[in-house]
Amino acid sequence: MKNIIKQYKKEFDYSYTSGASVTIELLKTRPDLVEHVFIHSSFNQPEHMIILCNRNGVAYTVSDAVFRRINQKENTYILGVFKKYPSTIVSDTSHVVLVNPADMGNLGTIIRTLTGFNIHDLAIITPAADIWNPKTIRASMGSLFHMRFQHFESIYDYIDSFSCHEKYSFMLDGDLELYSGIAPKHQPYSLVFGNEATGLDESFKSIGTSVKIPQSILIDSLNLSVAVALGVYLFKM
Amino acid sequence: MKNIIKQYKKEFDYSYTSGASVTIELLKTRPDLVEHVFIHSSFNQPEHMIILCNRNGVAYTVSDAVFRRINQKENTYILGVFKKYPSTIVSDTSHVVLVNPADMGNLGTIIRTLTGFNIHDLAIITPAADIWNPKTIRASMGSLFHMRFQHFESIYDYIDSFSCHEKYSFMLDGDLELYSGIAPKHQPYSLVFGNEATGLDESFKSIGTSVKIPQSILIDSLNLSVAVALGVYLFKM
Repeated sequence: MKNIIKQYKKEFDYSYTSGASVTIELLKTRPDLVEHVFIHSSFNQPEHMIILCNRNGVAYTVSDAVFRRINQKENTYILGVFKKYPSTIVSDTSHVVLVNPADMGNLGTIIRTLTGFNIHDLAIITPAADIWNPKTIRASMGSLFHMRFQHFESIYDYIDSFSCHEKYSFMLDGDLELYSGIAPKHQPYSLVFGNEATGLDESFKSIGTSVKIPQSILIDSLNLSVAVALGVYLFKM
Repeated sequence: MKNIIKQYKKEFDYSYTSGASVTIELLKTRPDLVEHVFIHSSFNQPEHMIILCNRNGVAYTVSDAVFRRINQKENTYILGVFKKYPSTIVSDTSHVVLVNPADMGNLGTIIRTLTGFNIHDLAIITPAADIWNPKTIRASMGSLFHMRFQHFESIYDYIDSFSCHEKYSFMLDGDLELYSGIAPKHQPYSLVFGNEATGLDESFKSIGTSVKIPQSILIDSLNLSVAVALGVYLFKM
């Protein structure tokens, strides 16, 4: 392991957390997944990290070479290498569905927000930003490891699997304005959001109820992670 | 102008929009500020941009050298150079107050959200991320040019200037849970948010009402731009 870590690529069967706090979150949440922890010699408090590795039976190396090799833009002094793992969502809870999310920062921030609001099931319609990319994991602040997620090739594949969920499609010209108390009382629901640049196309108007977040004409749209946070919060109220 | 544009630094008295859509927003909103537009030879539809420049009496240059010189990470093919301008907030509207915001992406996203929800006055307590940095402007999608903003050296300087605003400090252990209808009915208000890493310190408990956004213990906090969006939306409802 020591000699094979390279700059992350999507096709790898492993990924890594980048940074101390997100690596600590990984070690606390899913120590079973961790293959190796790398500690840069400039990391100022290695003792705590080493104790955490030892407690979880995780091997670690203090080495600077690997940090040069992965060639990150950010200065991070801790890497937690882990095996990618299969994940599926469950049917008795409410979901968020992201259709073709393109930005890893948004995807990670959304995972953090959902974790904060107790939505633990995320469906992603491909093509989509790579959920395993260290940038996504870092933006999630490690909350990815609390999330169930599943990829689908089309929204119809998702709907076939979860036909009992009440669907809400977030669109700029949605029929219903988002308000508190909007959520169905006795049924799990799916909140569906489109791509950052294109949103959801007109065909989503016939998928459940279309919802809009009222906003001024001075902006084209809200940031995707902001729209998802508002949707989830108002449905949870 | 052609020969002096350099990679942006905070002390410059000019800045630039980076990218076509944000430059178009600048030209439409504040053409009076624009000094020069640069168009990269690889930009695929220069005609529209040239028409917009001509209509607003703005000089433009098709040149690749300037793009190499500013050395951006993103591939952008349009720059709109403008003079920084003074801005102050007004007293008869509600405000958002950011205390030491550190991340330019967050600051820009917050400006976009506030513009979307018709909050047009932003107070910033320094030190803070540079509102003029091209990264901030890009994250704002150009909505910076719709925003009034003002920097203050401390929260007490701000309070002295706007003593009639009802203050709400967003804190993880705030006394009041955020709900729709929370806003005062007959008075402008100030929604106060802390730094990404540290939040607001305990002294803010004695500044107006402290508000919390209920969230699970699985996350340390929400992303700042998410917290601001939720606060503003629920106060506006």
